[in-house]
Amino acid sequence: MKVLVEGGKSKHCETVAYDPETNRVELIEQRLLPHRFETLNAQTYRDTAQAITDMVVRGAIANGATAAYGYAQGTKEFSGTDLESFRRHEAEVYEVLTKARPTAVDPINALKEMRRLCAAGSTVTEWQAIALAAAVEYSRRSVEGCRALGRLGAGLIAEGARVMTHCNAGWLACVDFGTATAPMYAAQEAGRRFHVYCSETRPRSQGASLTAWEMGQQGISHQVVTDNAAGHMMQRGMVDLVIVGSDRTLARTGEVANKIGTYMKAVLAKRHGIPFYVAIPLSTLDWELEKGDEIPIEDRGDEEVCGAWGSTSEGQLTYVRVASPGSRAFNPGFDVTPPELITGIITPVGILEPARLLEQRTELQLRLS
Amino acid sequence: MKVLVEGGKSKHCETVAYDPETNRVELIEQRLLPHRFETLNAQTYRDTAQAITDMVVRGAIANGATAAYGYAQGTKEFSGTDLESFRRHEAEVYEVLTKARPTAVDPINALKEMRRLCAAGSTVTEWQAIALAAAVEYSRRSVEGCRALGRLGAGLIAEGARVMTHCNAGWLACVDFGTATAPMYAAQEAGRRFHVYCSETRPRSQGASLTAWEMGQQGISHQVVTDNAAGHMMQRGMVDLVIVGSDRTLARTGEVANKIGTYMKAVLAKRHGIPFYVAIPLSTLDWELEKGDEIPIEDRGDEEVCGAWGSTSEGQLTYVRVASPGSRAFNPGFDVTPPELITGIITPVGILEPARLLEQRTELQLRLS
Repeated sequence: MKVLVEGGKSKHCETVAYDPETNRVELIEQRLLPHRFETLNAQTYRDTAQAITDMVVRGAIANGATAAYGYAQGTKEFSGTDLESFRRHEAEVYEVLTKARPTAVDPINALKEMRRLCAAGSTVTEWQAIALAAAVEYSRRSVEGCRALGRLGAGLIAEGARVMTHCNAGWLACVDFGTATAPMYAAQEAGRRFHVYCSETRPRSQGASLTAWEMGQQGISHQVVTDNAAGHMMQRGMVDLVIVGSDRTLARTGEVANKIGTYMKAVLAKRHGIPFYVAIPLSTLDWELEKGDEIPIEDRGDEEVCGAWGSTSEGQLTYVRVASPGSRAFNPGFDVTPPELITGIITPVGILEPARLLEQRTELQLRLS
Repeated sequence: MKVLVEGGKSKHCETVAYDPETNRVELIEQRLLPHRFETLNAQTYRDTAQAITDMVVRGAIANGATAAYGYAQGTKEFSGTDLESFRRHEAEVYEVLTKARPTAVDPINALKEMRRLCAAGSTVTEWQAIALAAAVEYSRRSVEGCRALGRLGAGLIAEGARVMTHCNAGWLACVDFGTATAPMYAAQEAGRRFHVYCSETRPRSQGASLTAWEMGQQGISHQVVTDNAAGHMMQRGMVDLVIVGSDRTLARTGEVANKIGTYMKAVLAKRHGIPFYVAIPLSTLDWELEKGDEIPIEDRGDEEVCGAWGSTSEGQLTYVRVASPGSRAFNPGFDVTPPELITGIITPVGILEPARLLEQRTELQLRLS
């Protein structure tokens, strides 16, 4: 998507990119957003792994693509033709990247896919060439998926619509376009004007910081609102449509796990007859889990809830404690929204009914492979 | 209520107090809470008015009592016996205090009551004496009201209960005991153990700061949670009861105006069969307004939503901007909860059905006078 640069101009940018000339992985330094826009050049695959660990990059799709590029980068760092030493090197690359963020499933899936495809290479050079092609393809496919779901979802955003979203399921969490934001970008491209309410999404406030930043860069009319305001705004007829992303969607039940607070918005939207959509790439579908309440919900600890990270008037990134000193917090990271509250699931292959995902399994899995 | 002092001891403290010896009004400096506990001694009625303006004190009942004491203080500042000069002085006191916070209704009601009662005084000394007695009585009556509703509400809090509250309807917003918190303090006094979830209540986070501070001072088990967590926690059976306060309760309809986010909690509580109570003094009842959507909801501007006030690790009270620079906010301060979502309204005279307030008008207004 576009990033504003000096002089009021803008340049195109993806969340993660790879330069085959220099063998560097370029990442948006997301820890500085929305206060400063910088990119980080990972010189080696170890730097790339570290960037995943340090959350320079975040979001399932973006993490997957970064790991894929990191793998291509790492294999290319090997000079020589001895296949046996190369295999030892490759094993090291694979392990370092796998361990960069062990709870995230996308980097691991991406690395497995890379290795599977590369196994066709019978020389070091072939392996390196396949790795590069596969990483580029992984990234391209994710961009195409987001673009496709954006086109499908754009039809839901009428001229003048007021769209509410939650957290950041934007291009910063993907390679480009995003998931929940993709329909907005496609509707903008189609020439429609609309207004986006970015729910701040405590405790980490990705809505206020990242989604609002994305909207600002793209020139889309938007406002930040507290999570508390959603009910009142729906009650007073100020919201026409809700679109959110998902961290994991249970194909067997149609339940959607997403950032804490999603469920409350879904309940309120249902009460007020407001369409509630979830936008996901097909890779987010979980075909195994049988019940939403089996999803473990991590308690993310006190710090996020008891204060906030932001920029002082001098531009210093600082944590301030807001809660009473000595008080502790309970900080569940996700919640689960049942299918009866969800109008539709926007995917690259269609807007699906949440309760009917399982019966479309064969078709959907075919599209994934 | 109790405030912890050095050496692990605690002292009793009211939000606003008056010392007839020195003619000073003593207020808790609430702008420093929860990070520092200090009191402010208002030397003159003008200092007291300024403290109301500057939000040293906040909350309907606390503001009313402060204005009443300020009136007594102001009349006592007059020395002499000439009734005509005294009346000019009294008019000045009345006007300065009335204008201290023109949108708050309680100070104005308190001042009207003071003036009405004082009119029985035929000398300066009598007027001053009545003013003092009336201010003490105003404060005492508010404390008694909170204590009475606390006793009634305490029965709702069973041993081991997990109670959720929103914002701060605590003793800091009253003279003592609070409204939503009064049943908790009474249940504690009755020897019951329970746990309180303080919703942080963005954008000003009075739940995380003030309510959590109150709980900490009183030694009540509690945790801070984001406003986003309420739905998930109710869904997973972690909340037994919700008690909130109200800024204005429409007696004609049973609708409750309260801090933004209250409505969302009420909707979720209803969905999950969790009792939802509103605790109010009778003065909060509005007998005139016919429809909740006639209540004007102020947009409180960008700053609160786009960042947070808190304490740095060096103990500096600082504002940090969290939202994307350049992004604007929409910041409705209140919402309106309809009576069908409210299990009961806890008042000093009973736990009332919200839809039956109007038919009890005569009885309730009798108790107020």
